[in-house]
Amino acid sequence: METVGTQRPGGRTERTRRAALDATLELLGERGYAELTVEAVAERSGVHKTTLYRRWESAEGLVAAALLMGTEQEWTAPDTGSLEGDLREVNLELVHFFTEPGLRELPIASISAAFLSPRAADALQEFYVDRHARSAAIVERAVARGEVPAGTDAVEVVRVACGPVFYRLFVSREGVTPRDADVAAAAAAAAAKAGVFTAADA
Amino acid sequence: METVGTQRPGGRTERTRRAALDATLELLGERGYAELTVEAVAERSGVHKTTLYRRWESAEGLVAAALLMGTEQEWTAPDTGSLEGDLREVNLELVHFFTEPGLRELPIASISAAFLSPRAADALQEFYVDRHARSAAIVERAVARGEVPAGTDAVEVVRVACGPVFYRLFVSREGVTPRDADVAAAAAAAAAKAGVFTAADA
Repeated sequence: METVGTQRPGGRTERTRRAALDATLELLGERGYAELTVEAVAERSGVHKTTLYRRWESAEGLVAAALLMGTEQEWTAPDTGSLEGDLREVNLELVHFFTEPGLRELPIASISAAFLSPRAADALQEFYVDRHARSAAIVERAVARGEVPAGTDAVEVVRVACGPVFYRLFVSREGVTPRDADVAAAAAAAAAKAGVFTAADA
Repeated sequence: METVGTQRPGGRTERTRRAALDATLELLGERGYAELTVEAVAERSGVHKTTLYRRWESAEGLVAAALLMGTEQEWTAPDTGSLEGDLREVNLELVHFFTEPGLRELPIASISAAFLSPRAADALQEFYVDRHARSAAIVERAVARGEVPAGTDAVEVVRVACGPVFYRLFVSREGVTPRDADVAAAAAAAAAKAGVFTAADA
C-alpha cells in the first residue's frame, strides 16, 4: 500500500503521484474527460485503484490534480527585446500547442473538461493565474524600456494578445495560423502603447 | 407523417422543423450535448422519432441544424456613433448572454458541444461567420467617419474586441464583468486606430 504523506521529491509517494497524474493526463488527451475513469487510470499507471480513490476521490479529483501539475512546469516568459516580439512568441507557442496533432489533444481536452467539471475549471483557472503571473515580466520590461506607460495592467495585455487565438480555436472555430497570432500580438502591443491598460484609463 | 419538402413559412413542414429544433435547443441548454438524445427531442417536441431520424439522422444532426437557426435570427450591429461605443455594445451583449443565469446555459452548451461534435463545430463556425459579416458594418462606418484607416480588416477588429471576453469565460475561467468587456473593446478600437488591422501592415 502506498502511504499518503509528505511528498519527498523522488520518494515513493511522489513517484506514485507522478505515475497516477501522468496517466490521467495521457487518458484525458486520448479520451476526453467524459470517458475518463479511475479504473483506466489504475490500469495505465499501475497504481492501485484503492490508492487512487483514497487520495483523489474520483476521476474528477484526478483530473483537477493533474491539471494543476501544469503550474509545476518550468516556463519562463520570452524575452525578445520588445513587447510585440514577446507577445508574438507567447502566441506562437499557443498556436503550436493547440494545433499540432499529437500535442494539441491534451490542452484541448483540458479546456473541454472545464465545461463538464467545476473542479477542472478551478484547476484551469489556477493554471492560467500562474501563467499570467509569469507573463507579467513581459510588460514590466516594456514599462522599464519606456515602450508602454507605467501602471499598464500586465495581465490585461496578455489576455488581449491571446484572446483572439482562443476565440478562433474554440468559439468561432475558424482555426488559427501563426499569422493570425502575430496580428493579435501586434494589436495588444499597440493598445498597450496607446495607454488603454493603465489604471488612469480605468 | 410529416412530409420533408419545401419549407413554406408557417407551413406544416416548417412548424415541425421549428418544434424539433426549438426542443433541441431547450434540451441542449438543460442537459448539454452529451446527454441529448433523439428520444428526448421527440418527447419534448411532439414530433415523431421516425421523422426526426429521417430528417436529421441523429442527435448530432439535430444539434447542428438547431445551432444554424441562430443565423436566421434578427441581429443588427449596434450603431452608437463611435467604433469604441459599438464594440462596447457588442461586448456587453456577449457578457449578458454568457453570464446571466437562465440565459447563459444554451450559449455555453453550444460552445461546449463543438468540442464533442465536428458537425456542431461546423455549425458554430457558420453562426460566427454570419455574425462577423453583420458586425463588419461597425468598422465600415468607422472608416467612413475617418476613425480608422481605409482597408481595416473589420472581422479582425471584432475578434480582438470579443476574444478577451471569451478567454476569461472559457479558457482562464476567471469570469467576466462589463468593465472587462469595456477594456477589451477599447483595446480593439485603439489598435484599429493605430492601423494594426490594415492590409498594408499585413
